Amino acid sequence: MKKLLNDPQDAVTESLEGFGQAHADLVEVHVAPPYVSRAGGPVPGKVGLVSGGGSGHEPLHAGFVGLGMLDAAVPGAVFTSPTPDQIVPAILGADSGAGVLAIVKNYTGDVLNFETAVELVEAEGTQVTSILVNDDVAVEDSLYTAGRRGVAGTVAVEKIAGAAAERGDDLGAVTEIAGRVVANVRSMGVALTACTVPHVGKPSFDLGDDEVEIGIGIHGEPGRHRIPLASADEITQRLVDPVADDLGLADGEDVLLFVNGMGGTPLSELYVVYRQARRLLEGRGVRVTRSLVGNYVTSLEMQGASVTVLRLDDELTALWDAPVHTAALRW
Amino acid sequence: MKKLLNDPQDAVTESLEGFGQAHADLVEVHVAPPYVSRAGGPVPGKVGLVSGGGSGHEPLHAGFVGLGMLDAAVPGAVFTSPTPDQIVPAILGADSGAGVLAIVKNYTGDVLNFETAVELVEAEGTQVTSILVNDDVAVEDSLYTAGRRGVAGTVAVEKIAGAAAERGDDLGAVTEIAGRVVANVRSMGVALTACTVPHVGKPSFDLGDDEVEIGIGIHGEPGRHRIPLASADEITQRLVDPVADDLGLADGEDVLLFVNGMGGTPLSELYVVYRQARRLLEGRGVRVTRSLVGNYVTSLEMQGASVTVLRLDDELTALWDAPVHTAALRW
Repeated sequence: MKKLLNDPQDAVTESLEGFGQAHADLVEVHVAPPYVSRAGGPVPGKVGLVSGGGSGHEPLHAGFVGLGMLDAAVPGAVFTSPTPDQIVPAILGADSGAGVLAIVKNYTGDVLNFETAVELVEAEGTQVTSILVNDDVAVEDSLYTAGRRGVAGTVAVEKIAGAAAERGDDLGAVTEIAGRVVANVRSMGVALTACTVPHVGKPSFDLGDDEVEIGIGIHGEPGRHRIPLASADEITQRLVDPVADDLGLADGEDVLLFVNGMGGTPLSELYVVYRQARRLLEGRGVRVTRSLVGNYVTSLEMQGASVTVLRLDDELTALWDAPVHTAALRW
Repeated sequence: MKKLLNDPQDAVTESLEGFGQAHADLVEVHVAPPYVSRAGGPVPGKVGLVSGGGSGHEPLHAGFVGLGMLDAAVPGAVFTSPTPDQIVPAILGADSGAGVLAIVKNYTGDVLNFETAVELVEAEGTQVTSILVNDDVAVEDSLYTAGRRGVAGTVAVEKIAGAAAERGDDLGAVTEIAGRVVANVRSMGVALTACTVPHVGKPSFDLGDDEVEIGIGIHGEPGRHRIPLASADEITQRLVDPVADDLGLADGEDVLLFVNGMGGTPLSELYVVYRQARRLLEGRGVRVTRSLVGNYVTSLEMQGASVTVLRLDDELTALWDAPVHTAALRW
């Protein structure tokens, strides 16, 4: 295992420490238990947004803490759900009195631990709603999931619900908007290589020199099938078609097209995927009116990419366009 | 070779096409010859800024075209200098009448081809100055260079000179500011793995499973020495010490600390490097007042990182803070 790490057991803690120092204007990093909150604390009157999950997907979620997005992020160990004792103070700290929306990717551990935390904070009088993100069309159930997995579509949920909270929507309205994003966003990914969890020290799975895994999960969970390495255009079609079919995209609809890197793939290749994904969508009469290309929901150093499509309406577009000021997303 | 590509010969062109579509609000992509210009053309009265170099370092340079940074970027083939016939229209198109500053990384091919292009546009009456970026302290001469190589410090030169041009400085003043950045910025990098140029199809160099290359160039050119894989803290010290020594940093000085990923290293590891680099600088009494962490000057999918330190004064800090709106840097 070749990584820029000290003791692998300290990887998450040390990385968070550096993150907090580099972005002290945006975030505060709490150590025991570890979570990241928006600098300056909760905004009076604003609904709080909290998300979290296993580490190893950076910049998700801590990179999205700040104006117009999350109020707190709770990082577990690498590829491991955060515990309720981390989630509880993150939620309590994000509550200005207007309540908190918890955004949870659909993995069994995350769901269970967020549920436990929500029960605990509700007992203390904090009003909390939850939304489950399950945008991955690749498989119905998987290694760590009952139902579909939550993957890169989470960025759109956090961005758009965050903008709704920032403009002053109440908890019910923010939750409704988050639900609308979940209902209209789909993703699918591909891996060219595996990744190595620091404290494990060897690749999470084996993939032949000439094969790729279509429908990979963000922890290297198995996807739909392995195929021989093919051209970027062919691979992209195997991602876009299931996403567009599942969304039931119709001629004339507007979408956000988000090509996400898994961590180890050069940005230049993501734009090659974007080009073909856009062409395929336009071939269906769909208009790509918003775009995002880059490494936002990663799997450590895995090579690969995912394609996320979000069906837009005027309100979702305006909320996507609203100002955001976080370490990883800013406009 | 496992990459998300179609015909390797089309990799740069197809990637640029996708880049142009995804960022049509910011840039215009020209095809024959290929270069990228700021959407809407040159800003009347503003000094134009043009940079360029081999592809494979994305988001450098095209990702830095836009408000507050570059007016045009000229991408060569992967790890290959752009040709004068590309550079000429990029410079001419960036000239609003106030002249153009060409920012050139110090590689023999880039220097030669920019010089040729500058002679050609001067013959047409365009006023051009050039600045050579040579921030890499690792080696004095190298495979493609007489003198030090230009690496990640280029981002600081483009950002700060871009801000000076945007506030209305004339060509002499913008050039002087760019020179001040070059005089005060130093970098050094490390590679954990090699990268593979698409049209070559095999890794650029061999690196043992248990060794890293200290002082690597951004094309995989040899550095200072190979050492056995060490902790992130030890490796970071081998980058920071030569940089800080070469800059002659003194107690009480302010700096920008920029930890740059080579492409294939997870963001989480870059923050581990940042944490230690900051600690080492603070140990010298230096204050880290500005920070940047991420993949900005890459070497395709190479795993590794570089540390860049820029000595700041009030003016350089204000120019660094000035608004920027490009695909890869925005605030």
